[in-house]
Amino acid sequence: MGPHPAVAAIRLAVRRTLADLAAEAGVPVGAPVRAPQSRPAAAPALVPAGSAATTLIGNARRHPSGLPRTPAAPGAPLVLVAVSGGADSMALATATAFEAPKLGLRVGAVTVDHGLQAGSAERAELVAVRLRELGLDPVEAVPVQVGRAGGPENAARDARYAALDAAAERHGALAVLLGHTRDDQAETVLLGLARGSGARSLAGMPAQKGRYRRPLLELDRAATRQACSAQSIPVWDDPHNTDPAYTRSRVRHEVLPVLEKHLGGGVVEALARTARLFRDDADALDQWAALAERDLRTAEGTLDVPKLAELPPAVRRRVLRRAALRAGCPAGDLFARHLESVDLLVTGWRGQGPLHLPGGVEATRRCGTLVFRRQSD
Amino acid sequence: MGPHPAVAAIRLAVRRTLADLAAEAGVPVGAPVRAPQSRPAAAPALVPAGSAATTLIGNARRHPSGLPRTPAAPGAPLVLVAVSGGADSMALATATAFEAPKLGLRVGAVTVDHGLQAGSAERAELVAVRLRELGLDPVEAVPVQVGRAGGPENAARDARYAALDAAAERHGALAVLLGHTRDDQAETVLLGLARGSGARSLAGMPAQKGRYRRPLLELDRAATRQACSAQSIPVWDDPHNTDPAYTRSRVRHEVLPVLEKHLGGGVVEALARTARLFRDDADALDQWAALAERDLRTAEGTLDVPKLAELPPAVRRRVLRRAALRAGCPAGDLFARHLESVDLLVTGWRGQGPLHLPGGVEATRRCGTLVFRRQSD
Repeated sequence: MGPHPAVAAIRLAVRRTLADLAAEAGVPVGAPVRAPQSRPAAAPALVPAGSAATTLIGNARRHPSGLPRTPAAPGAPLVLVAVSGGADSMALATATAFEAPKLGLRVGAVTVDHGLQAGSAERAELVAVRLRELGLDPVEAVPVQVGRAGGPENAARDARYAALDAAAERHGALAVLLGHTRDDQAETVLLGLARGSGARSLAGMPAQKGRYRRPLLELDRAATRQACSAQSIPVWDDPHNTDPAYTRSRVRHEVLPVLEKHLGGGVVEALARTARLFRDDADALDQWAALAERDLRTAEGTLDVPKLAELPPAVRRRVLRRAALRAGCPAGDLFARHLESVDLLVTGWRGQGPLHLPGGVEATRRCGTLVFRRQSD
Repeated sequence: MGPHPAVAAIRLAVRRTLADLAAEAGVPVGAPVRAPQSRPAAAPALVPAGSAATTLIGNARRHPSGLPRTPAAPGAPLVLVAVSGGADSMALATATAFEAPKLGLRVGAVTVDHGLQAGSAERAELVAVRLRELGLDPVEAVPVQVGRAGGPENAARDARYAALDAAAERHGALAVLLGHTRDDQAETVLLGLARGSGARSLAGMPAQKGRYRRPLLELDRAATRQACSAQSIPVWDDPHNTDPAYTRSRVRHEVLPVLEKHLGGGVVEALARTARLFRDDADALDQWAALAERDLRTAEGTLDVPKLAELPPAVRRRVLRRAALRAGCPAGDLFARHLESVDLLVTGWRGQGPLHLPGGVEATRRCGTLVFRRQSD
């Protein structure tokens, strides 16, 4: 009997990500670093049942798969898992602990204590203990100071990623794995839709960005719960996930169920597919804009208006955005309506004066070119 | 005192559309066809108040603006308004009747009787009477047979557009105006989102397509209700608009209010802006795909695989889609998953056999090219 289907699906997704990472790091394929006591990389469907899992709290000496742990050598490349203690990240950590040694990788974990709830430090320590019991090493519980910039969700995220980046640097990790699922992706797309700022805001979260990887992005949140349950892994439900003060929580518990009910059952999948398509669209259009900008930038660093006018609006808007950002506009303050005004300097010219953009940047049309300049320059 | 702000906003939107149409048709600017008895085109803010409007049923001889009607000459170019009798289309028809003569255009209307409700023929006739009272001429109530293809909403829409096309041909109309508002656009985007098929399905309804124009696409549905109320124009609420059997009705009454509540108030506007941005994106990427296809089509009409592989995924997918459609795939049956399989012939080649696509089309990789062929060919 093979593992529970949810366990198998998560392991497969993790294995693919780890295989890519091992290949990038030059780890020989199929050659675990501490080869003598490791078994050959078996398909997980052939592995003894997860139903025989022992509890993980305490001195568990066996992996929930029932197999002895076979850690990679101390010098092997390290992958870190970011773990909140919820089902998504616990299922990810468990699968990574199972798969990584077979690929010659070490697995560690970081759990961030946001310090936003009473007892959060003890909670983080308990999660760290569980992760060590799963065989992850090193495991760190990292306290952070959450600021206020951009609202509570953004501030918590910024603090979390800063801590993860620091841990990755400290341990020289190849990558940091994140437990986001297809449901998180659907929520992100809906939040982007409400911003109405185009393909990039609907593109959701990438499967890969810098050192971060999201192996579970094509899997349902329910699968991570099933996997934890099948392996008797205790999980912790962050009360923020159901706190209606948080927009994402409202999207999860109020908006998505209504969409599912009225638009048909496949909404989460449709939103996730939408994200993939829009990421590709946004990448292609950014590529075009970069090429176009090179072509229409004058020797003086201004933009040639007749050439701008020939571009499709979607590409022109992106060229104008790039120019505004380069001149010093803060990306978070530059909105579609600003770019529409700048666009009118090209497509609706009637002698307008300089446009004032965020960050003290001025856009002016002069002698058939557009000039972007910081006022203090 | 000027007209109600909603009346002024609708007239302005209509005037812009009509001015474009008049310019395209070569009607001299500002020169009404029957010039002697018409006043100069005054800004609507200076026109006597709509609050003095008379009722429209019966032998009303004055426009609801309070001004005498000044119809364009019988031979002037004709614009038709598609009217259901609801607030959107009645506000549109009223504003068009007010603005068109000033631009030398005649205005007629078509109201389609879908025959789906008892008394629908009498209802259509009553709407026609109201439209004639507003000064529109010709006005036709056209009965149609609604089929079953694609579900009740699609079938009704197909029948309606066929009737509108036929009326436009019969009268040699320059254009047919449709009363869709920003709210309709937001609903269309959400319906497209549920399909998850990318930028084109999120691009909503265009302001202009073929003979159709949507002057009210940037205005709220509420403005059309206010305009009708301010001008004492009776409106008819189609019970289908509140019938939960219709997906669009559920989107309007169940989904959008929940989105507004939980994502903040600007959701309708954000969705409409999203639609505009995605229309531009889709247009630009289609343009790129058309250019790319020309470049990588071989003398034998197959597609060069190495050149395909160099394209960004978003462009390659569109090139593959174009090739599949040209080979005979029905557009409505060709889904993202089909194109993903075809894409693997380029990016994941491991000697796959021919792929069977809808409409009996086969995609095969052969000698470094992709061949799309109808099996019966």
